[in-house]
Amino acid sequence: MAENEGRITIHMAASLDGYIARADGSVDWMETADEYAAGEELDADYVSRFLEGIDCYLMGSGTYLTALDFEKRGLGWAYGDKPVLVLTSRALEHSRESVTFHSEDLQGLLKQLRGRYANIWVAGGGKLAGNMMRLGLVDEIRYSILPVLIGKGISFFEGLDNDVALHLLKSRAYRSGMVALRYAVAR
Amino acid sequence: MAENEGRITIHMAASLDGYIARADGSVDWMETADEYAAGEELDADYVSRFLEGIDCYLMGSGTYLTALDFEKRGLGWAYGDKPVLVLTSRALEHSRESVTFHSEDLQGLLKQLRGRYANIWVAGGGKLAGNMMRLGLVDEIRYSILPVLIGKGISFFEGLDNDVALHLLKSRAYRSGMVALRYAVAR
Repeated sequence: MAENEGRITIHMAASLDGYIARADGSVDWMETADEYAAGEELDADYVSRFLEGIDCYLMGSGTYLTALDFEKRGLGWAYGDKPVLVLTSRALEHSRESVTFHSEDLQGLLKQLRGRYANIWVAGGGKLAGNMMRLGLVDEIRYSILPVLIGKGISFFEGLDNDVALHLLKSRAYRSGMVALRYAVAR
Repeated sequence: MAENEGRITIHMAASLDGYIARADGSVDWMETADEYAAGEELDADYVSRFLEGIDCYLMGSGTYLTALDFEKRGLGWAYGDKPVLVLTSRALEHSRESVTFHSEDLQGLLKQLRGRYANIWVAGGGKLAGNMMRLGLVDEIRYSILPVLIGKGISFFEGLDNDVALHLLKSRAYRSGMVALRYAVAR
């Protein structure tokens, strides 16, 4: 990776048993009620500074539809006015100007994005994450574990066919019982 | 649960993508090479005192065969002379006196064990863990995450059909890049 190229981070939240959504895409189980007294508070200022630092979001069609559904239920649009690139060949609702649809070659698109943005976030889902890992296109994984088992659903990395060695960068436990792990991907 | 009844803990190590073994049962991927400078050292004295506190082990046939294979490859028998109860209806090699085979009703067996032992550990695999969770027989889960993705394999909890809420008790990151999580199971 050239020094001035953008970094690609995959960020997802999962149940302890490794699912990012139920089979139908729903994420209702994410509203857990745990309290871990020894955990850090998730500071709102920190979160908003953190989100400021993200330059664009990449996602698959399922994640986009989930985000639209959240918004329709009054839970807001999680990506502000940051560019959101949806990888899809489906004709989906074009909800706002910041959203663009892309069906071209993933490697070519990411090369472009890396030249333009410093901090590129992949918001899901499992298929896109698996594809990107297989193609060696990921620099960092942020994996947040919620205190619940859901038994079945969509896995974080679908269709990986090789082992991928990781390097733990940070582990943090929050008051909500969520554990946030950060790994560099060995490339 | 009566006050003087033994506690049941499920303990497993998994890849970040939630697999406890490859499809063929192998766990070669557990030998990761990561180093996390901010992590705690795993102190040998602590580990041996900790293992002393376990009164008996429960496992499925696959886990038992993996343990036998480890021993044959010169890697030792992980359970000392503690009682090891193997849940199986298969005719397996009886490797030592401390090992007994049980094919009876899981609930009945655990009731007996709870009367006899204070600290009962379930060493795997996914099917047994899933069954015990479904039957509401588990007090605590210890889940150690290794810094690697393996893409496919045997899941930690097979065949869970309900959500199970958890309460985070402890999160620890080690020098080896392993993150050890400890949860109470809401009962």
